[in-house]
Amino acid sequence: MTSPTDHPVTDDSPGSFGVHQGGWFWEESPNRARFGMKVNSKLHEESSEYQKITVYDTPFFGKVMTIDDLIMLTERDEFVYHEMLVHLPLLSLPDPKSVLIIGGGDCGCIREALRHPVDHVVQCELDERVTRVSEDFFDWVKPTIADPRVELVFDDGVRYVDERPGQFDLVIVDSTDPIGPAVGLFRAPFYQQVARSLKPGGVMVAQTDSPHWHSSTITTIYSELRQSYRHVHPYLGAIPTYPSGLWSWCYASNDRAPHEFFDVERARVIAETSHYYHPDLQRAAFAIPSFARQAFGL
Amino acid sequence: MTSPTDHPVTDDSPGSFGVHQGGWFWEESPNRARFGMKVNSKLHEESSEYQKITVYDTPFFGKVMTIDDLIMLTERDEFVYHEMLVHLPLLSLPDPKSVLIIGGGDCGCIREALRHPVDHVVQCELDERVTRVSEDFFDWVKPTIADPRVELVFDDGVRYVDERPGQFDLVIVDSTDPIGPAVGLFRAPFYQQVARSLKPGGVMVAQTDSPHWHSSTITTIYSELRQSYRHVHPYLGAIPTYPSGLWSWCYASNDRAPHEFFDVERARVIAETSHYYHPDLQRAAFAIPSFARQAFGL
Repeated sequence: MTSPTDHPVTDDSPGSFGVHQGGWFWEESPNRARFGMKVNSKLHEESSEYQKITVYDTPFFGKVMTIDDLIMLTERDEFVYHEMLVHLPLLSLPDPKSVLIIGGGDCGCIREALRHPVDHVVQCELDERVTRVSEDFFDWVKPTIADPRVELVFDDGVRYVDERPGQFDLVIVDSTDPIGPAVGLFRAPFYQQVARSLKPGGVMVAQTDSPHWHSSTITTIYSELRQSYRHVHPYLGAIPTYPSGLWSWCYASNDRAPHEFFDVERARVIAETSHYYHPDLQRAAFAIPSFARQAFGL
Repeated sequence: MTSPTDHPVTDDSPGSFGVHQGGWFWEESPNRARFGMKVNSKLHEESSEYQKITVYDTPFFGKVMTIDDLIMLTERDEFVYHEMLVHLPLLSLPDPKSVLIIGGGDCGCIREALRHPVDHVVQCELDERVTRVSEDFFDWVKPTIADPRVELVFDDGVRYVDERPGQFDLVIVDSTDPIGPAVGLFRAPFYQQVARSLKPGGVMVAQTDSPHWHSSTITTIYSELRQSYRHVHPYLGAIPTYPSGLWSWCYASNDRAPHEFFDVERARVIAETSHYYHPDLQRAAFAIPSFARQAFGL
């Protein structure tokens, strides 16, 4: 029987690139795979202080935002990412009031967080241009940031969180991949700062890459997470436009296991208007296939 | 908030095509998306009586078999499909002895079924060339078909199953997609023939396409399934090289619900040498995200 690890390319690719040509946008894992989307037109492109931000109009995926030529979100499937990153942890908290989102400039996490009985949702995004471009192209952004419970901060999330001990019920790390400016958001010192910013019983969630094709990246991330939290639990969801289609997030806490509380009533209400989140996933998303368990440290 | 159903292309694409050019193999959903694999070389290509069969050598996915230019299996991730289609139903049966596989010419399902205490595994594949080409290129085939418990039949599965009432504990429908020669394998008359071929307490499983991008196909399939079985339960797994990366199968039976029995001890032994199947998935794989529930009739 062939083992899936028998093939010669087993290291993680150092980075991917995207090009827009012949009416298609391509994202490539070099010498491995390419994912292409049919494109109607490029709606916007700019180089901000930090990165290149592009928006395409596509016939199947709706509007698509790329950062440095990597797909960040598509209107067709962004719901998977945002719902799983937000509802799952908030439904594990009995009375979440204050939420901090680090990164997440497209405001998708804020949008979902506002569907819970929260008082205050702060988004601390390094690059204001990500939010302003999103405001111009994605229809959820203006009504979301007009909500009086929302505070937008454009600053370094590492510094922001360090100055606010004991303030948050939930901190969501909605970062780009662990290359370039976001690499510090995948290291133990940052995770420990986040842990200090939590109220008792508080939780951090973070996006933690694809287990199918980026297992060594995951091994590193989870090793850093376990230096910082007592409870570290990966969970999974299916996002067609992210590499391999399978994505992971981490539920981490020093004093709360993921299944010790579940607000079933709130989950039912949320699920009525959700596209991905369903109460059955609250536990099922934590079931990890055999091939990925070692990378996650299970 | 944008609904993922707002975009203009909502019908299922009538079919996909693949081309091999510039050192890459492409599979396209027309006007939607393309998936590309870097290719070292084309190892084999032939037109059988029924279809075009091609084998590529690739640096990342190992050897890859396409049928009519659609990816059927890659050495890197075929384990997901075969383990989920075989172990999950066999572990729900207390004493499975006889298994029929309809289609499945690559012998991946036989390989996994032989890891259970079965007496007899029949594979009824229409196109003998699929099996003979697989024998030449995939290392699991020769030892698998040499097992004395295995019987290979090259014939029409519809006729085969109709002539064998009450014979099987499990029938696995491992077909190509519901276009072309396999379309009859997704219709109620066939599902009812399969139901008659089962022993009391027997189960049918079948591959049922991608819920992310092929929802109208799924609606049709599950409507046909519900005309034929009392218990009809979709379950999911993540296959990077199939369209959208998320795949579905159906667990169907007239007299057995999927969770009424689970052989935990056998599952633990199987999981020790599995790449995808894990006992946690026996229940979690049946958790269906909100967007797909209507298509599955849930």
